[in-house]
Amino acid sequence: MSKPDATQAPGNPQYARLLELISEVRDIQGIGALLFWDQQVIMPRGGAASRGNHLALVNKLRHERFTSPEIGRLLEGLRSYEESLPYDSDEASTIRVTRREYAKATKLPPELVVRASRAATEGYTVWLAAREARDYGVFRPALEKTVAVTREIAETLGYEDHPMDALLDQHEPGMKVADVETLFAELRTALVPLAKAIAAKGDIVDSAFLQQPFDRAKQLALGLEAVKAIGYDPEIRGRMDISVHPYTIDIALDDVRITTRVNENYVGQSFFACLHEAGHGIYGQGLPGKFGRSILGDGASAGLHESQSRLWENVVGRSRAFWQSFFPRLEAHFPTQLAAATPESIYRAVNRVRPSLIRVEADEVTYNLHIMVRFELEKAVFDGKLEVKDLAEAWNAKFKEYLGIAPSDDLTGILQDIHWSMSFGANFTSYTIGNVASIQLYEEAVKQYPDMTERIARGDFAALFGWMKDNLHVHAAKFTPQETLERVTGKPLTAAPYLGYIKRKFTDIYGL
Amino acid sequence: MSKPDATQAPGNPQYARLLELISEVRDIQGIGALLFWDQQVIMPRGGAASRGNHLALVNKLRHERFTSPEIGRLLEGLRSYEESLPYDSDEASTIRVTRREYAKATKLPPELVVRASRAATEGYTVWLAAREARDYGVFRPALEKTVAVTREIAETLGYEDHPMDALLDQHEPGMKVADVETLFAELRTALVPLAKAIAAKGDIVDSAFLQQPFDRAKQLALGLEAVKAIGYDPEIRGRMDISVHPYTIDIALDDVRITTRVNENYVGQSFFACLHEAGHGIYGQGLPGKFGRSILGDGASAGLHESQSRLWENVVGRSRAFWQSFFPRLEAHFPTQLAAATPESIYRAVNRVRPSLIRVEADEVTYNLHIMVRFELEKAVFDGKLEVKDLAEAWNAKFKEYLGIAPSDDLTGILQDIHWSMSFGANFTSYTIGNVASIQLYEEAVKQYPDMTERIARGDFAALFGWMKDNLHVHAAKFTPQETLERVTGKPLTAAPYLGYIKRKFTDIYGL
Repeated sequence: MSKPDATQAPGNPQYARLLELISEVRDIQGIGALLFWDQQVIMPRGGAASRGNHLALVNKLRHERFTSPEIGRLLEGLRSYEESLPYDSDEASTIRVTRREYAKATKLPPELVVRASRAATEGYTVWLAAREARDYGVFRPALEKTVAVTREIAETLGYEDHPMDALLDQHEPGMKVADVETLFAELRTALVPLAKAIAAKGDIVDSAFLQQPFDRAKQLALGLEAVKAIGYDPEIRGRMDISVHPYTIDIALDDVRITTRVNENYVGQSFFACLHEAGHGIYGQGLPGKFGRSILGDGASAGLHESQSRLWENVVGRSRAFWQSFFPRLEAHFPTQLAAATPESIYRAVNRVRPSLIRVEADEVTYNLHIMVRFELEKAVFDGKLEVKDLAEAWNAKFKEYLGIAPSDDLTGILQDIHWSMSFGANFTSYTIGNVASIQLYEEAVKQYPDMTERIARGDFAALFGWMKDNLHVHAAKFTPQETLERVTGKPLTAAPYLGYIKRKFTDIYGL
Repeated sequence: MSKPDATQAPGNPQYARLLELISEVRDIQGIGALLFWDQQVIMPRGGAASRGNHLALVNKLRHERFTSPEIGRLLEGLRSYEESLPYDSDEASTIRVTRREYAKATKLPPELVVRASRAATEGYTVWLAAREARDYGVFRPALEKTVAVTREIAETLGYEDHPMDALLDQHEPGMKVADVETLFAELRTALVPLAKAIAAKGDIVDSAFLQQPFDRAKQLALGLEAVKAIGYDPEIRGRMDISVHPYTIDIALDDVRITTRVNENYVGQSFFACLHEAGHGIYGQGLPGKFGRSILGDGASAGLHESQSRLWENVVGRSRAFWQSFFPRLEAHFPTQLAAATPESIYRAVNRVRPSLIRVEADEVTYNLHIMVRFELEKAVFDGKLEVKDLAEAWNAKFKEYLGIAPSDDLTGILQDIHWSMSFGANFTSYTIGNVASIQLYEEAVKQYPDMTERIARGDFAALFGWMKDNLHVHAAKFTPQETLERVTGKPLTAAPYLGYIKRKFTDIYGL
């Protein structure tokens, strides 16, 4: 049997025991990650039913082990030890984060966890059927159940100001709905007029040449080159495979796998999925090895994880500098398709702004408006101002208001995301937090490397990669997202850098 | 949460509870199988250390859950229920087999399980180093530890006649060392003179044309065709992949995966590995679905599992009839290499007999002699007649005695098999039991289908596949191997059919 990898405290047997118990919980989590990865990438169809049983058992075992009374007793016993240590020490952070997560986990009775899990499984199935039928009415009864159980979870976890605070806290520890509303208001004020100004210029950016046949194998080879170039390791400590929905999964710190999906008639889909997932993968592979089996061995929050994926996908991958260095590689794979293209035409094409119905295809200017629609609808439901039965109609109205367009059916409207099939409330905010944080972090890196643009333009990503590793990844999950941003950038989450970036970039592209 | 799949007994709540507890143990086993499969086939190298932790945890969880006092109490409480049921009912069999396995598992203290597991991990590492050095002396100290811990396990499990009975029982429930010795004596008496008679005829079978360059991808395509043809499903309920050592792994009854390995200069290696593993896979896929999460959801023993792999690899795959139907498929992939070949020349080539040093490359006549060498050395060690330090020398002497040749170094001698790096005692006997049982079962199938040879000659494997499913697989792990053979063939394990088959086949090929 091996020892827990996390920071050792041979002097305190209670702390050592806590690490030991947590390392099992983390191992169970890694096992669950492999079960999920295999299910999405490899598993023969026949294995589906058993896999459901295997995953349910792993969740049950994880909850059982993590909520064991022994962990509770150890946390009590370790109070004075924790107080004797610096707040930012590995030991104090381990105890603090375990205490926080333990408090949440033990509040939820196993019966409620099981009920929520059942609602999610059923919700997913019904959502698929509703998509087939392109009819929100099919989905509505399942969503009502999910909303009810989610509300019950929020009440059980408890909150001071708003029930959604309890849910948001699961993704972004310490953040509140009020913080999100302030952030969103600032973004909305700037982005809605910007999107309108761009629309007023007409469709002046040509991206049609990205949409023609591109060989599948070559797209994958290109994606693999790109993820390696920016610093993700897909060979020794990771893999890149194909799945229906691209994602990143941490089986262990030395086994962080990403997936992509290929559209044979559009070269952008797989390419940016690769960069996005590699950004997550770099964060996972970049966490300090000592946290391998520790509760701290994770990103600081869903939003900060997203900051890393959006950094490499957008801030780097959709930058002019990037295409100066990367254009020859793209051209080498697709000389015919790109015969008339230039680095500048690629740069413009991958930044074409157009109000669209589908979130995952949205450009950087309108993306956050998609998130706001969802967040505001969720909050209206929680506040009793909107009923689930009226959600589709409200969705379409909000779209019209923020993006000037409305879906023609529920499939391109309220049924587009998987998220509400499994839970409801504060799922989407992490995406916008990630967008905003990506620039806040990038600008901090530029302070140390004022020639960052030139570096990227010559294909040198080591400075940015290394800065993120040394300044962000090093903290792993020791602090809340706001604490982490304060430590790394001197400020909590701040919209100004992001809005400055968006305005500069698109004013230039659209000649505003 | 889903219900256990095994036979339901709504009338008896203790039985229902037993099924529920066992279904979790089986799920943990399936999860461990996936961890192992991924480790061998897919895992990036960096994941090795974590995977060790994950596998150790799964073994610990399985042991914890299976040896829980609640299972003991249920088994006690179910005695009169069991006695009220027919012996061969699913319910009585479930209780009986659980009782048997529970008794063994609870005898072993977790500390001993952990120590054996450590010895195996260490032994495997040292074995690899010894292979590098081609020196048994490097391996010896580790093997001494393994022998000591294996002996301790045997003493802890207990036995009536011979300590190796306790170990053999783990692979072949109910069989004893004395049974194996009787079987081996009968085989030895017939096979040693036969091998000598064949050797006296000279090297009259040409197999050189099988050893030339064969494209890797085409070999895999051919293997896939073959495994599908005989009835293994590599698409919906299984997969076929590549690994260093070919094997079959049951993640669930509907997710049974096989692997092969390719030698680009010999077409036989991958082809027969495919047939062999597909034989195991067909058994796994052929078990009744109702046993999916039951303790009965397995083959009757390691030896009966081997009977199915050897059936398809040898009895079918090395038969004249098989090559009458399969030759055109082989030729279609490799027209150049097989320009001068005929079904008959392939048949003869894949049956060339030659005393050889490596077990896994041995022909049907000499294969069992390899097994006897190992079994007799193991027994001599257990009987105190041979010391571990003298094993390599004894190995070479036994080879000279049975096969007329001796290894030139330890790599082609005592260091060739992985088995002794992880355990010692009665590991190998199941291979010979499988060979013998394969013919006993085949001949029983022929009684129902007297035209079996003609069927195979026209590529119709459905009769043989279906007969095995209906007559052998249907019993799953309800009975001991001897009970199973009695039920299926009317006799316990009997050498005569196998010896008759070997004599007929090779008398013909070698014109004896």
